[in-house]
Amino acid sequence: MSLIVQKFGGTSMGSIDKIKHVASKVIEEKRKNNDVVVVVSAMSGETNRLLELALDIGGNHYKRETDMIISTGEQVSAGLLSIALNNEGYRAVPLLAHQIKIKTDGSYGKARIFSIDAENIKQEINSGRIVVVAGFQGVDESGYITTLGRGGSDTTAVALSAALNADRCDIYTDVDGIYSADPSIVPEARRLDVVYFDEMIEMSSLGAKVLQIRSVEFAMKYNINLYVKSTFVDGPGTQIKYLPEGGKMEALQVSSVACDKDEAKISIRGIPDKPGIAARIFSAISDDGIIVDMIIQNISVEELTDLTFTVSKKDLKRALKLTESVAKELNASEVISDEKIAKISLIGAGMRNHYGTASKMFGILAKENINIMMISTSEIKISCVIDSKYAELATRILHEAFNLSLNNGGNGFK
Amino acid sequence: MSLIVQKFGGTSMGSIDKIKHVASKVIEEKRKNNDVVVVVSAMSGETNRLLELALDIGGNHYKRETDMIISTGEQVSAGLLSIALNNEGYRAVPLLAHQIKIKTDGSYGKARIFSIDAENIKQEINSGRIVVVAGFQGVDESGYITTLGRGGSDTTAVALSAALNADRCDIYTDVDGIYSADPSIVPEARRLDVVYFDEMIEMSSLGAKVLQIRSVEFAMKYNINLYVKSTFVDGPGTQIKYLPEGGKMEALQVSSVACDKDEAKISIRGIPDKPGIAARIFSAISDDGIIVDMIIQNISVEELTDLTFTVSKKDLKRALKLTESVAKELNASEVISDEKIAKISLIGAGMRNHYGTASKMFGILAKENINIMMISTSEIKISCVIDSKYAELATRILHEAFNLSLNNGGNGFK
Repeated sequence: MSLIVQKFGGTSMGSIDKIKHVASKVIEEKRKNNDVVVVVSAMSGETNRLLELALDIGGNHYKRETDMIISTGEQVSAGLLSIALNNEGYRAVPLLAHQIKIKTDGSYGKARIFSIDAENIKQEINSGRIVVVAGFQGVDESGYITTLGRGGSDTTAVALSAALNADRCDIYTDVDGIYSADPSIVPEARRLDVVYFDEMIEMSSLGAKVLQIRSVEFAMKYNINLYVKSTFVDGPGTQIKYLPEGGKMEALQVSSVACDKDEAKISIRGIPDKPGIAARIFSAISDDGIIVDMIIQNISVEELTDLTFTVSKKDLKRALKLTESVAKELNASEVISDEKIAKISLIGAGMRNHYGTASKMFGILAKENINIMMISTSEIKISCVIDSKYAELATRILHEAFNLSLNNGGNGFK
Repeated sequence: MSLIVQKFGGTSMGSIDKIKHVASKVIEEKRKNNDVVVVVSAMSGETNRLLELALDIGGNHYKRETDMIISTGEQVSAGLLSIALNNEGYRAVPLLAHQIKIKTDGSYGKARIFSIDAENIKQEINSGRIVVVAGFQGVDESGYITTLGRGGSDTTAVALSAALNADRCDIYTDVDGIYSADPSIVPEARRLDVVYFDEMIEMSSLGAKVLQIRSVEFAMKYNINLYVKSTFVDGPGTQIKYLPEGGKMEALQVSSVACDKDEAKISIRGIPDKPGIAARIFSAISDDGIIVDMIIQNISVEELTDLTFTVSKKDLKRALKLTESVAKELNASEVISDEKIAKISLIGAGMRNHYGTASKMFGILAKENINIMMISTSEIKISCVIDSKYAELATRILHEAFNLSLNNGGNGFK
């Protein structure tokens, strides 16, 4: 008998019929003689509806109240799934964050989990019940409800897996696993049998919305046996795990290509090339809660230099305003921005052992006359910012050139 | 400085704009240098929407889950009002049942409050905050959310008033007080300045939906200084209080007339007139959770008798089925039912000291040729069941004959 944690997202919980289908997936696992703990998200659209209510009345600056409001979606879902399971003759019990003491810090809207008191859950499991936990929520020290940020139910599931020492954590979603590229761009994209934690973290930060990045970090820290599976199509899914010690050769040079069109770039020109200038610009921006992704500083000419960086498109307006005000103080010559960009990235744990991935990538793009505006690299990924009109083309030619559709046997030797 | 508990119902909380208006009512009280605790219901329609979701997935028999689901409406309301108050520059804090330990029994859907830990609220009040409590909800011994039944937020407000020893409890609703009759039937109906607890309990049980009956019983037990007021129209409202000791002459012979068209009657004919028969019929019905209101047994003829009783229209079908099955066992001659009935009631704490109210009522109805089918009396009310087509007529002529519109000075000597 194993203990399985299952997590179902908003699309899976989108209607009464879909919730009944989710119940059948839970029962399938229970019938294999396993103990099951289920984590649920709000019905699709519900969190946005609630958030809009909160914003409409001016909730922008009142995150504690907003969390109290938006956490109700998961509460409703937990109740509904529990009813569906009971109706099928399986004893189920819905539990909320305050009942199982999912303690978090007080950062409403993006709280971090400190601890979970698993005793309550274990008792319910031991008496044969299926436990249905409302995802996305926690409680702070004073007992106020907190939420864990978009995709936070993934983190609830992974944290529960750690607290319960679960044998497996299955994240059910509307895709049947992690792909070598977005199949809507690259029809030949293949499902990966295995993705390594390092790769998954890069993918999540590159805008692959399959898993909340914090949940991957958590899973990595506690070495959770993690899978991404489809609620609607049966299949093995994608396993996310550690690259085994001494197994570096198992990793593919490149396992996937990602395309992110959600960023915009800002350039500030003609600023003094001396210490402290970059700090001044970026502290103004980060103080406002805006995350800067890529940064490039040009070689200076006559002690003047240019600085270019990218931010989320949704933050562009605010970031631009802040940059312009700093630019004025610095007597910079101009500030320009560009929303028509795309970030194309190659990811692969095997890059650590393969030289020449970057130069091969640049060569492929150059052959199609695609200009590279910015480059950023890590041990296991290379990202290039290009004109957004070439985004799909670049994704396809890179996918083909690195033979990403050919490795049908999964992530094995190359 | 006084401590005021205010309660706002679903209609008052029906939209973002209405919630902002509620905030202004709260602030008005706060500006009088009072401490304020607010209890809120779900936005109008929300509890029904949630209940439908629960029923759609089969929640009929899973009341614990259903309570978890339907209690979210009040949670959202508490968050929204708290935001609205904060936005106006007043510090407010929303609190849920599990945070202030509103302990109830485990009768999901109609739980009764055992105790409230007022410490948390007092601390918030002492630090100058307005406390916004989600109504309608409690927690049972195991920490599961319970709900208090329709209108349960009234009971939350009254129970909090008792726990906090509040100076006043204002129930805000969409009418500006308790009336001598339904103004849509009797245009001359007047708002009563004072209604006594005994009268209010009769009114609530006669279908006046202004206050949940349990909240009135609670207020009576703890002698809460209770008012019903309008959210939308300023005014003194109606005070509900104890008839002062020795103040029996203060009470009007009749203070109001109520009209209830929500009942139906069932007659079972030709049953043996011997002990145990009534018990057999009514235990079958009450075992199914159906409440029987009025009961009449005719004088027996040749050791056979008839039994007539009323139930809620919504329960008629089930009650009829149960009665028919018992009738078969008893070899009764027939079972008939009638939905076209109305119950007209006169209420007044002064009836205790006035003889002849009943005979005057019967005479007035007889003068208009209105036949009385059933009669039921208590110390302070008389109810007659009549043909529903005369309901409005009967209400108006009784209201006029007892001069109920003339007592402009409130409930004083007559």
